[in-house]
Amino acid sequence: MNSVLSIDDLSEDLEQILQWAITMKSDDEIAADFFPLMNMSIGSIYEKPSTRTRVSFEVGINKLGGNSLTLLKGDIQLGKSETIADTARVLSRYLDAMTYRCYSHSDVAELANNSKVPVINALSDKHHPCQAAADLMTIIEKKGMEKLKIAWVGDGNNVLHDLMLAASIFGFDITWAVPKGYEPDSEVVNRSEIIAEKTGSKLIETNDPVDAVKNADVIYTDVFVSMGEEHLDNKMNDFSGFQVNEELVSKAKEDYIFMHCLPAHRGEEVTDYVMDSKNSVVFDQAENRMWSQMSILTYLVNRPAWETYSQLLEINY
Amino acid sequence: MNSVLSIDDLSEDLEQILQWAITMKSDDEIAADFFPLMNMSIGSIYEKPSTRTRVSFEVGINKLGGNSLTLLKGDIQLGKSETIADTARVLSRYLDAMTYRCYSHSDVAELANNSKVPVINALSDKHHPCQAAADLMTIIEKKGMEKLKIAWVGDGNNVLHDLMLAASIFGFDITWAVPKGYEPDSEVVNRSEIIAEKTGSKLIETNDPVDAVKNADVIYTDVFVSMGEEHLDNKMNDFSGFQVNEELVSKAKEDYIFMHCLPAHRGEEVTDYVMDSKNSVVFDQAENRMWSQMSILTYLVNRPAWETYSQLLEINY
Amino acid sequence: MNSVLSIDDLSEDLEQILQWAITMKSDDEIAADFFPLMNMSIGSIYEKPSTRTRVSFEVGINKLGGNSLTLLKGDIQLGKSETIADTARVLSRYLDAMTYRCYSHSDVAELANNSKVPVINALSDKHHPCQAAADLMTIIEKKGMEKLKIAWVGDGNNVLHDLMLAASIFGFDITWAVPKGYEPDSEVVNRSEIIAEKTGSKLIETNDPVDAVKNADVIYTDVFVSMGEEHLDNKMNDFSGFQVNEELVSKAKEDYIFMHCLPAHRGEEVTDYVMDSKNSVVFDQAENRMWSQMSILTYLVNRPAWETYSQLLEINY
Repeated sequence: MNSVLSIDDLSEDLEQILQWAITMKSDDEIAADFFPLMNMSIGSIYEKPSTRTRVSFEVGINKLGGNSLTLLKGDIQLGKSETIADTARVLSRYLDAMTYRCYSHSDVAELANNSKVPVINALSDKHHPCQAAADLMTIIEKKGMEKLKIAWVGDGNNVLHDLMLAASIFGFDITWAVPKGYEPDSEVVNRSEIIAEKTGSKLIETNDPVDAVKNADVIYTDVFVSMGEEHLDNKMNDFSGFQVNEELVSKAKEDYIFMHCLPAHRGEEVTDYVMDSKNSVVFDQAENRMWSQMSILTYLVNRPAWETYSQLLEINY
Repeated sequence: MNSVLSIDDLSEDLEQILQWAITMKSDDEIAADFFPLMNMSIGSIYEKPSTRTRVSFEVGINKLGGNSLTLLKGDIQLGKSETIADTARVLSRYLDAMTYRCYSHSDVAELANNSKVPVINALSDKHHPCQAAADLMTIIEKKGMEKLKIAWVGDGNNVLHDLMLAASIFGFDITWAVPKGYEPDSEVVNRSEIIAEKTGSKLIETNDPVDAVKNADVIYTDVFVSMGEEHLDNKMNDFSGFQVNEELVSKAKEDYIFMHCLPAHRGEEVTDYVMDSKNSVVFDQAENRMWSQMSILTYLVNRPAWETYSQLLEINY
Repeated sequence: MNSVLSIDDLSEDLEQILQWAITMKSDDEIAADFFPLMNMSIGSIYEKPSTRTRVSFEVGINKLGGNSLTLLKGDIQLGKSETIADTARVLSRYLDAMTYRCYSHSDVAELANNSKVPVINALSDKHHPCQAAADLMTIIEKKGMEKLKIAWVGDGNNVLHDLMLAASIFGFDITWAVPKGYEPDSEVVNRSEIIAEKTGSKLIETNDPVDAVKNADVIYTDVFVSMGEEHLDNKMNDFSGFQVNEELVSKAKEDYIFMHCLPAHRGEEVTDYVMDSKNSVVFDQAENRMWSQMSILTYLVNRPAWETYSQLLEINY
């Protein structure tokens, strides 16, 4: 198996994967002649609708010369008419890789365990490695590789999980401010701390957004109430004081960047002032979903092409 | 912005756009070597299901070498989880153009206003420019550019709006026979009259189908009760006497052509006699959706290619 | 018309079609240079969701250089807003071929009768020619062309219908064991017997699974309760004794192959013991859906390419 269920599955080569993504994005000449997925088909399975994930994968796969095949909820129901394992075995006969956006992380794990082709987790309840790849690509693009402080303000969710893992891999400090009861999964925190010990990252949990944001280079938030959680009446109340607004960002470094994985609920977790400020990089971040996924796909599906081009990169850059 | 919300957005170059569509359709050699959308992705967003629009766009985009990405209702819900403006900004990062079939015309306008890539209105409650482009292409193909009389019999709807605008641009006369209470939007009629003043078109409204059809070169109708209007019990009654049948078409010129944007409800707005007569060009018209959209897309997305080929056209034809 | 509604529509050339499928599958060099659907668009219409059919067609079409366009239930509703005949006429203007998975066989027949481009039945309540093509390809691949005995155990359904027709074309013997009341359509049996008379196949019906399986080279079953039949409470009871399990397969030849068109309901019509045994070829069979459909599509849509390559085949193999 050669799959990506969480961002630490790429640890070793993550820096090079993101550098290659930055290069593809900026160098039109390379892009015009780089078709590592030619004659290949990548299938994307969605249990939840997803504009950004879907469009970024479909367009990215096409830019690499590949054929994108999208299976939405209703088109395919993994685990319903046959076991996930049997579906994995069948789809492995047709496809060169799969992406899977599911609810339960155990489902994407079962798909990957029974697939003969690489599986990319395109969002589960526990992990969101593609988002973390885009996030780190954006941070490196805007801020370089020097030691940075990242501040997460909001829910201790799947986006934070992979951001924390990725920050640890790169040796960045990360502080997450979450309301009591919304802490990230301790298993993921532990995994991150093991990585951080080697790289020197500091991982800090707090319940105070100001504490997190102080001197931060990066402020990151996500919606407080996700798709499917609308019934949780109290959740919004629990996040009072966690809005990223003019006052809160004033505590960060002057040249901080504001990040959000989108969609944003303007007026809830973030104000227009912050979203539309010059510090906001949210649309670059959205664009980087595509470039980083293109690099990950090439890495997984056509390693020789990825290595040839990455060596080129080391020589030229 | 370089978008097409209604057919008059193309006024200046509409004739050349349609001539180019006619050329592509008829000249296999050109088609085999004309890939102006190569390495580009065009996204199509649908709030309403649409066989003709969808297939004609997907196939046409492919014929031009491009990648077609279709987002159906449920896959994406513009204006639900984030503002249309934010979605426009994100999709502009991935796509080279968008088409949008929506209910409310203000939604496609908002998408276009916030998009950095061209947006084509693929049908709104007010306008249907792609249909008008196909309609005029068909009229020119079958009848040439000489002064013609077009008769519309039916509802004063979005299809009539853009047909009226397009007829005005080409200097054709158009009479619409509509039941009282089903008149076209006066704002669109005013815009058409401003154009007609320069080109010499005569625009006439009547409540009498026979009056409209008399000496017509073109008879055009559309379903009386559209998708989503099935609850309007009385609507069908209001259109009694407006059926395009053997008797009505006998008032037109002998070589009149019958047009319909389809789907047709045979036995309601039109009889089998007319639909299946030698005068009926409805399937050519449906095919021309594809060719005219291909020309519009090339015009919007790859103007240099469009200009090069259009000049070729002027020399050779 | 040049369509495939049931497998006997291909009688004459079926062997060569399957040989070509086997060649494409095994010879990477040919596959890398065989794009007979270049610049063509194939539309696939589904009234029922279908993982295997859909992915195998989309990927196969792409491997042949073509553009795949998938219309799911809800995107298009044949026979609802206009007649199937009118939809067929319109789609013929855009597409180079269509596949259609429907409920009522008369619907795919009506589509084919009114289409100017080839129509492939991708499953109707009466026939499943694509499955039979994959089945025979798998049998030939694994067992060669010598006289074989095929045993069907289960429902007398559409899969059996085309398997019976295909077995007859190849001169294979086939015995189907079905519970009383679940016999195959007598019209199809009659058609098969007419073919069998020429080729020497023996077609036998029984109600005893052991009888069918005795000395069989191939054991084939399908789910007892299909999608949409879940309300038939008694159906499962009627099939007691028809499970393909360790005891039943012990009656077959030692090197028998086990086939299933999937999805399989493990523990109902087949046990894990059989599904996961070395005799099971179910995933090869699933993969062969793609290769056999690729050959059929090429045969229907680009006969010159198919003939050129097939002659190559005769010379080289």
